[in-house]
Amino acid sequence: MNEADFIVALRALPLHPGARGLQDDCAVITIGSETLVITHDMMAEGTHFRADADMADVAWKLVTTNLSDLAAKGAKPLGVLLGHVLGRDDARFLEGLHDALTTFDAPLLGGDTVAAQGPRSFGLTAIGRATHTPVPARSGAQVGDHIYSTGAVGRAMLGFGGDPDHQAAFHRPIPRLAEGIALAPLVTAMMDVSDGLLLDAFRMAEASGVTLALEPQAIPVADPARFGECVRWGDDYELLFTAPKAAVLPVATHRIGTVVPCGPAPLVLGDTPLTDPASLGYRH
Amino acid sequence: MNEADFIVALRALPLHPGARGLQDDCAVITIGSETLVITHDMMAEGTHFRADADMADVAWKLVTTNLSDLAAKGAKPLGVLLGHVLGRDDARFLEGLHDALTTFDAPLLGGDTVAAQGPRSFGLTAIGRATHTPVPARSGAQVGDHIYSTGAVGRAMLGFGGDPDHQAAFHRPIPRLAEGIALAPLVTAMMDVSDGLLLDAFRMAEASGVTLALEPQAIPVADPARFGECVRWGDDYELLFTAPKAAVLPVATHRIGTVVPCGPAPLVLGDTPLTDPASLGYRH
Repeated sequence: MNEADFIVALRALPLHPGARGLQDDCAVITIGSETLVITHDMMAEGTHFRADADMADVAWKLVTTNLSDLAAKGAKPLGVLLGHVLGRDDARFLEGLHDALTTFDAPLLGGDTVAAQGPRSFGLTAIGRATHTPVPARSGAQVGDHIYSTGAVGRAMLGFGGDPDHQAAFHRPIPRLAEGIALAPLVTAMMDVSDGLLLDAFRMAEASGVTLALEPQAIPVADPARFGECVRWGDDYELLFTAPKAAVLPVATHRIGTVVPCGPAPLVLGDTPLTDPASLGYRH
Repeated sequence: MNEADFIVALRALPLHPGARGLQDDCAVITIGSETLVITHDMMAEGTHFRADADMADVAWKLVTTNLSDLAAKGAKPLGVLLGHVLGRDDARFLEGLHDALTTFDAPLLGGDTVAAQGPRSFGLTAIGRATHTPVPARSGAQVGDHIYSTGAVGRAMLGFGGDPDHQAAFHRPIPRLAEGIALAPLVTAMMDVSDGLLLDAFRMAEASGVTLALEPQAIPVADPARFGECVRWGDDYELLFTAPKAAVLPVATHRIGTVVPCGPAPLVLGDTPLTDPASLGYRH
């Protein structure tokens, strides 16, 4: 069973209403007068990190990729639970974990530590408090909205390739928590760019039932000579969002397109309709 | 780094106050007027299940071992998040997951699914609402309290060994959710017996700063001829708790001892003081 089939099957299980049909990055649950945002993302050796990776970077990324999902909901981190498999360089793992928890004020709530053989996988559950309700979803983009990114894409790709100026972008990504909180009251849809700008925009378009028309010359990329790769590589963790044309945005952003009525393609890049998500980014 | 060292190091990280110093089975956080109980436990191939295990049983156990932690806090399940590594018999895994989520009314909130090589490990985060505050901890046993178990230990051991009458106890454990909710207002300390009655009682004694004096003849075991093994094997998921002598208990239980002042050994079994936790149960 591949990932897509597995997720389809999961959707047939009893789902909490806050699971949003497993169509979004986080669960959103109401507890009394508060709204919690909860996510769980994993990292597996061989898939998400190399066998010789610095385990401090792995721990940092495990935390920050989850916090990036909270950022896309405008949530403030409350705490995290760690699922850890013991192994090589656990002391380095703990250093990176300490750095990330401290930097983003996300204290440890609990978790589990187990012994296992072979390549390792780690899990992290991040819990945040929504700062604005309704909590932004992927599905709210409206025709006429402008489309924005909080920053350039492709930096993590260059860092992965060894570019010394972009090492941090790949190994130590920064979740856009402050930006997400500032933007949450204004956006119509928001998500983080984890799997590639085009693929994530495609998903937002499909969830919203609209077409996202992106203007290639407006998209900030780390290396214009490798535009096509920059917009397909993931791991940058910028926020992709839509907002009404008249919205006055409180943070620096790049307007990269316009939401248009649902056409034959969910995504249009300049004059090019894009219909096949398999060609648009990193699916894992 | 072994598990004990790793957990000691985790305790030096920034901890949420609700983490209870990572000394308990669950985190307990207050959200407005509600109290949430949160736990994350993993299962790894080779450590917690065999390579040829029925994956439906693995999924069931992944859910129910986590719900057992909620039971020990008197919490009602709100939902779960799954960390899944794709592989063999995922359809069977989904069947067991469906059975467990349905049986215990614990809908899926979200999670992650990844591809990875080698033996697999799974994680599950379970979130529940406390039905009584203060939420029971391991640390509240008081001198003079009586010590109780909700049922016999050793059944999972017999099931693991192939005894047809006890297969379900090993493969399909039942979290004592109703019992935990009924008992929470009355207990002074409570935990689930996951790693062996003696080891878990030892931990409760240490957390509470008392000695637990157990009466061997009063401890219900699945096979009296293998008493020593029954009280050291885990996986039974009965609740171990202490309550004031005068408490009128609303569920069927077995009184198995008395809390006495902290002596040289945290645990006494009949006339035998037990001081070395390594000899008392299953540590993983």
